[in-house]
Amino acid sequence: MNAPADPLAHVVAQFAPGEPGVLYFDANSIGAMPLAAERAMARLGEEWRRLRRRGWSDSDWLDAPARLGEKLAPVIGAEKGSVVVCDSTSVNLHKAVLMALALNPGRDVVLTEEGTFPTDLYVAENAAQAKGAKLLRVADLHSIESTLNSSVAALLLSHTDYRTAYRHDIAALTKLAHDHGAVTVWDLSHSAGAVACDVAAGGADFAVGCGYKYLCGGPGAPAWLYIAPRHQAAVKPAIAGWMGHADPMAFDADYRPAPGIRRHLAGTPPVSGNMLMEAALDLWRDIDPAKAFEKHAALGDYLIRLVENPDFILASPRDAARRGGFVAFRHANAAALVAALEKKGVIASYRKPDIVRFGLSPLYHRFTDIRELGERLRRVQ
Amino acid sequence: MNAPADPLAHVVAQFAPGEPGVLYFDANSIGAMPLAAERAMARLGEEWRRLRRRGWSDSDWLDAPARLGEKLAPVIGAEKGSVVVCDSTSVNLHKAVLMALALNPGRDVVLTEEGTFPTDLYVAENAAQAKGAKLLRVADLHSIESTLNSSVAALLLSHTDYRTAYRHDIAALTKLAHDHGAVTVWDLSHSAGAVACDVAAGGADFAVGCGYKYLCGGPGAPAWLYIAPRHQAAVKPAIAGWMGHADPMAFDADYRPAPGIRRHLAGTPPVSGNMLMEAALDLWRDIDPAKAFEKHAALGDYLIRLVENPDFILASPRDAARRGGFVAFRHANAAALVAALEKKGVIASYRKPDIVRFGLSPLYHRFTDIRELGERLRRVQ
Repeated sequence: MNAPADPLAHVVAQFAPGEPGVLYFDANSIGAMPLAAERAMARLGEEWRRLRRRGWSDSDWLDAPARLGEKLAPVIGAEKGSVVVCDSTSVNLHKAVLMALALNPGRDVVLTEEGTFPTDLYVAENAAQAKGAKLLRVADLHSIESTLNSSVAALLLSHTDYRTAYRHDIAALTKLAHDHGAVTVWDLSHSAGAVACDVAAGGADFAVGCGYKYLCGGPGAPAWLYIAPRHQAAVKPAIAGWMGHADPMAFDADYRPAPGIRRHLAGTPPVSGNMLMEAALDLWRDIDPAKAFEKHAALGDYLIRLVENPDFILASPRDAARRGGFVAFRHANAAALVAALEKKGVIASYRKPDIVRFGLSPLYHRFTDIRELGERLRRVQ
Repeated sequence: MNAPADPLAHVVAQFAPGEPGVLYFDANSIGAMPLAAERAMARLGEEWRRLRRRGWSDSDWLDAPARLGEKLAPVIGAEKGSVVVCDSTSVNLHKAVLMALALNPGRDVVLTEEGTFPTDLYVAENAAQAKGAKLLRVADLHSIESTLNSSVAALLLSHTDYRTAYRHDIAALTKLAHDHGAVTVWDLSHSAGAVACDVAAGGADFAVGCGYKYLCGGPGAPAWLYIAPRHQAAVKPAIAGWMGHADPMAFDADYRPAPGIRRHLAGTPPVSGNMLMEAALDLWRDIDPAKAFEKHAALGDYLIRLVENPDFILASPRDAARRGGFVAFRHANAAALVAALEKKGVIASYRKPDIVRFGLSPLYHRFTDIRELGERLRRVQ
């Protein structure tokens, strides 16, 4: 089977090579390193040495959370001025859940499904309890519709299921939530940078995601927070630190929130993490996100065509429009298979009880990588 | 006046040089870069490229928050197992204030003084209000004693005043708070790595601080959180994420807190920031903190002897035991003086209305740097 042509071949060349001969399909864990990350590290070292405290005024460190948010916005289909890069996904989700509850003061339920990413369940349950509310987990999508009622303040969902890659319909579910007076909180970690999220078009209220998977910001990269423009000034920041002050360097004794999304920043920005994240986000300057998502769908379709067999059963939707960043298969000995693949130079990942995941990046995967994966997989199966 | 001998001269050599001819006295803003930071960046690049998701299992990324906490503990006089390196100072302070209120459920006041670092005031006021409590700011230390009563849940203080460098007595104030049934929350940002903090000996309940000033972790380095061992299991984590789960990689649907301080971690650790921070903390392996603090006191004493004059009035305590990380002076044209110094290659900092600050690091400042500062200062005054 011939590999499709790659419309983003020039972008693949902007990534640093990994270990020779190794194929990395762990975009769902840690995305590859852009070559520009090396330059970012050199710049960090140079500015740290030479500028020191002047980096806050003479370089671009201070503005990074908002500037990086602007660069990320088109990748997730967000409005200008609606995204900041900051904190971890967990901390941003904590803030989003608290704000969602604050927007709906008479309601005391945060509704979610069992398949939501576990850390999101922990964070949301704890945040809900702190406000005298509770997290209600239902079995699946169908139960969500029947459970939504006037006590639900917020619907929290992982956009893409971390085991099957099933991708929720943001617009449909947000409309459903809004019809019942609830707001939505989306975790886009397994989607952003790989597939269309369309948070603005979908009417999402809050969204969070990590920077280190498909966005290629490096291990433990800063995360991000989306707040729909209509809500930014309607709720108090959940954590009110100096970076959300109208004039952080004035050292006013009293808090005066910055306009717009910036008020939802808290602490000093992590300069090293932001520089690496910016190197990755800058790759999108010359990329039409729609073209990248089209390539991602084609990578997944090609992978399914090459590797699906009676012992390796597709666990993800066959329709690329319903798949998130990776493609998952079920296998009777999934853990052993992932270990065997690793010995053959294929990095995939295993999730209980029988799931094998292949994370696909539209930016750095080549169709020939998928073909080579198919060959190595046949050798271990 | 002869410069005193430097007992840590061998440590000075472990830092990267700044701009030639420039003297940096901004340890109170961004500490100098250890040479080991270059190696940390090279290692980050190598592991990101080669290991990718395997960095979580085959390298030491996952354990960094607790491991770095253990390395930091002796520098701030904390018990083993009582410190984690994570999040920003603002986020950690938010968590500490919420936990302090949770420990004292019948009380609704967080007491502080006007001189507390402004972002701490914003964070604490917001966190208190979220729990139906309030932040009460009194004018000074003397008012604290007269205001402490049975409605005060927590006493929040900056260990070192960010304008005068006045250093509070942790033991005395914690005893005073405890006598009134309140717990203490300390911000050690302007102390840690420069002067003795003795959080364990002083009986502190909670403490936070940044990693980028005297600790030399790099711009926007990860911050840290101290929780006295007696409180670690007594309160729920304020933000409950997967890194605080007993088994983060089990992806359990239910939250089960890790033992000890680790349960107070939330999101994925920032690997680049942690690697740089560890390079800096490792400098302390062969340093007796008491010796470093002694050198720091001598640097400050020497600086005062050299530069104090009728137009340049000491704003900091003359007694080094009552000074934090920097030495401050009042000057009629402080802002202009700091700008003039910058032109002469001296990086100091200005704070309203008339304060000039010189941040001193026991690790990389030489007494001869102070002598040179004295000479350049005379040329601009």
